[in-house]
Amino acid sequence: MLVLGIDPGLAITGYALIGEEVDAPQLFAAGAIRTESKMPLTKRLLELRRQLSAVAGAHKPDAVAVEELFFGRNARTALAVGQARGVALLTCAELGVPIYQYKPAEVKEAVTGYGAAPKAQVQEMVRLLLHLPVPLEPDDVADAAAVALCHLRYGLALACGLMVERTI
Amino acid sequence: MLVLGIDPGLAITGYALIGEEVDAPQLFAAGAIRTESKMPLTKRLLELRRQLSAVAGAHKPDAVAVEELFFGRNARTALAVGQARGVALLTCAELGVPIYQYKPAEVKEAVTGYGAAPKAQVQEMVRLLLHLPVPLEPDDVADAAAVALCHLRYGLALACGLMVERTI
Repeated sequence: MLVLGIDPGLAITGYALIGEEVDAPQLFAAGAIRTESKMPLTKRLLELRRQLSAVAGAHKPDAVAVEELFFGRNARTALAVGQARGVALLTCAELGVPIYQYKPAEVKEAVTGYGAAPKAQVQEMVRLLLHLPVPLEPDDVADAAAVALCHLRYGLALACGLMVERTI
Repeated sequence: MLVLGIDPGLAITGYALIGEEVDAPQLFAAGAIRTESKMPLTKRLLELRRQLSAVAGAHKPDAVAVEELFFGRNARTALAVGQARGVALLTCAELGVPIYQYKPAEVKEAVTGYGAAPKAQVQEMVRLLLHLPVPLEPDDVADAAAVALCHLRYGLALACGLMVERTI
């Protein structure tokens, strides 16, 4: 099973493609899709779609995993992220790939064993689980890898009906 | 010139197609694209895209007009609206239609002559300008008509370079 983890954003969308190889996760590709803030909004959305389509089209993942978002106060950020997230979800949905969503605490729990783990610990565990010499950067890419690992971790429980379906 | 005004939302996206006929605006079509809250998010985004594509494809507008959004506090609403807005903007952009954005005060000013006009006054002026027997409903459709009227109103100023370009 190949999972495409995505951390959508208007300026940066992190992505990571992780497969399960002989019970150990392996990183196949990762990167950041960037759009310049000087560009008009619609051009940025088109560019995000183009690049994400290319990534998904090239690797043909079996599933997409994203984190559920919570915004405490910043509605302006929520709107910008929402626009990018809508385009990212649409792009993957049109390719026919099922999309799974996990809460931040579930991602932390799956990767570190502790649902309230600090960000640095999550990133270090992502590095260890993927046998990487250095942590993934920027944060958006590491976060995308974490949610992909989370889906691989919960995949068996989902398949056995031991967990509520997480497709969105 | 035919303008497609849109008021994007996840549950309801209002739209209105307004043309300039012998110096008077005329409503050609209007409606609400609804998606059920019980449906998965990705299905709702796909449905919004499908219906909005059909509207834009059938009428071939020369321009799309949307209102700039401000959210005071509700980041949760901003995320939901943002996802729908991203998909709506992408859909129109992929059809090659230029998209113009106006501030709420500009829309009110253009329709009523007063930038802080109450909502009911805006809706009544939309009704009068379009020679309709009753106001457009729901609010989302009336708001879509208002921003389309705003673009028609400012179209000449834009064409003459008297106004800063509003494409996004």
